[in-house]
Amino acid sequence: MAPLVLSSPEQYQKLVDSVDTFLLDCDGVLYHGPVVVEGVKTVLNMLRASGKKVIFVTNNATKSRRKLQAALNKLDLNASLEECFGSAYASAVYLSQVLNFPKDKKVYVFGEEGIEEELDAVGIAHCGGTDTEDREFKPPIDFDSFKPDPSVGAVLCGFDSWINYKKIAKAMTYLRSNPKCELILTNTDATYPTHGSQFPGSGSLSIPIVNSSKRTPIVIGKPNTTMMDAIIADHKFDPSRALMVGDNLATDIEFGLNSGVRTLLVMGGVTSRDQVFGDKPSHVVPDLVIESFGDLAVLAKDKAE
Amino acid sequence: MAPLVLSSPEQYQKLVDSVDTFLLDCDGVLYHGPVVVEGVKTVLNMLRASGKKVIFVTNNATKSRRKLQAALNKLDLNASLEECFGSAYASAVYLSQVLNFPKDKKVYVFGEEGIEEELDAVGIAHCGGTDTEDREFKPPIDFDSFKPDPSVGAVLCGFDSWINYKKIAKAMTYLRSNPKCELILTNTDATYPTHGSQFPGSGSLSIPIVNSSKRTPIVIGKPNTTMMDAIIADHKFDPSRALMVGDNLATDIEFGLNSGVRTLLVMGGVTSRDQVFGDKPSHVVPDLVIESFGDLAVLAKDKAE
Repeated sequence: MAPLVLSSPEQYQKLVDSVDTFLLDCDGVLYHGPVVVEGVKTVLNMLRASGKKVIFVTNNATKSRRKLQAALNKLDLNASLEECFGSAYASAVYLSQVLNFPKDKKVYVFGEEGIEEELDAVGIAHCGGTDTEDREFKPPIDFDSFKPDPSVGAVLCGFDSWINYKKIAKAMTYLRSNPKCELILTNTDATYPTHGSQFPGSGSLSIPIVNSSKRTPIVIGKPNTTMMDAIIADHKFDPSRALMVGDNLATDIEFGLNSGVRTLLVMGGVTSRDQVFGDKPSHVVPDLVIESFGDLAVLAKDKAE
Repeated sequence: MAPLVLSSPEQYQKLVDSVDTFLLDCDGVLYHGPVVVEGVKTVLNMLRASGKKVIFVTNNATKSRRKLQAALNKLDLNASLEECFGSAYASAVYLSQVLNFPKDKKVYVFGEEGIEEELDAVGIAHCGGTDTEDREFKPPIDFDSFKPDPSVGAVLCGFDSWINYKKIAKAMTYLRSNPKCELILTNTDATYPTHGSQFPGSGSLSIPIVNSSKRTPIVIGKPNTTMMDAIIADHKFDPSRALMVGDNLATDIEFGLNSGVRTLLVMGGVTSRDQVFGDKPSHVVPDLVIESFGDLAVLAKDKAE
């Protein structure tokens, strides 16, 4: 079934009236690199003023909500901390509220400050992470130093630029020695786009732990429903009155479809017209399509821009 | 079809008469940890004295042939350098003799001294590896430092206890920027058994490079036929007059079956009787089974032990 293309103010108004919670992908919807999409500031202010909930949903796992907020507000988007939802925070919420992570256990972090900050925010104890004892490893490997630790109840993996043998072997040891120890990945992105090229991403850095522990990980991050479970656990909204807005079929739109939330694809981002309207369209079909999220600005009485 | 179980001197003699080249797995066939299997020294000397070729075939990629030889001779097995064939040397031979690696290119090594030593032995230039410039990396990541290098014609991955982001990103950059740059793994062993436990193995350490480069690697090491291609390229024997002897169905026996070389499974190693003779036997069926490789010692006139 082809998506419905929205192009008139009446259609925009009908959409906005039917939605209480707007889940918004960031890059490609709100901005392209350093440039904010025209009309987006007006739309965000309009939605907030009319009592709609806005949540910025991103797979970025190095950044805590605080850092995501700072990045959005550098672009003058007036984001509150509550509106920010990255996969590091989603992982912490998933552990805390979906898995009811035991109070007497701690999480071994294969990742950086952002993940630690979010675990702190939900009150979960952690080890590893930025600990210099794990970061500053140099061979030879002291195999006898890797001991099971029953107090580690989960291994949480994100982007860790300090990846080394000690961190991988510690995580593997905790997982192998304790079948109840969960393995959680913030996301499985194989590459990380930056500086005009692609570099090894979180998914490629944590795969040694998956492979050596032979465990099936719980994956947070779009398009997995675990991410929606975490958002709903934290924000408590009615998914039938929510809308996922994104420019990426494989992450954003698939995420909404997997989670039973309506989807709005914006053009001008990573998805080509051919993938939606061509002879061989993608099997991932959004409910709705709009040229730009900023187009909703025609509904605003006060234009902020 | 069930394997033929050899148990009489006549059967042993018939086997030895039909074989010119004995390809021998090490741990589980020749010794268990530090203890040499009874009769094995006699068998090796008998085979050599009667003009048979003996080749020790192991997936160990950290050790060069020189180190494998030293390890075998510590157990008094009289191994010559030519008799030793590890997956590091196999990779070097595969590059040199099977792929005809260009003389003006070099190999980026994700691995240690053993691999470098074997590339030196076949006259292939290399970079990375033990270079302190790659080993002693500390974040932050300088993304601009990762530049394509058209002189790198292959990335060769083994066990690298100095794994870090710089090594992974360099390898990924060489592979992404040059479709002709080969990706070669010494083996895909997920874990590495040592100190009475399992630790992350070569396959788990090199998988970030496979995953982020999105390339299909050439895998050396049993049970891949690439390993046999390398052994035959180096030793030039008739595979129909060769025998692969091992204790592991998934590596040794599968290796022989994949390569069209007859297989002899020895008991007492990692394979249980149930896997061979039970109600639900493994789908990997050796041609022949013997209780111990040392049992062939009954054929020897001079008993060395």
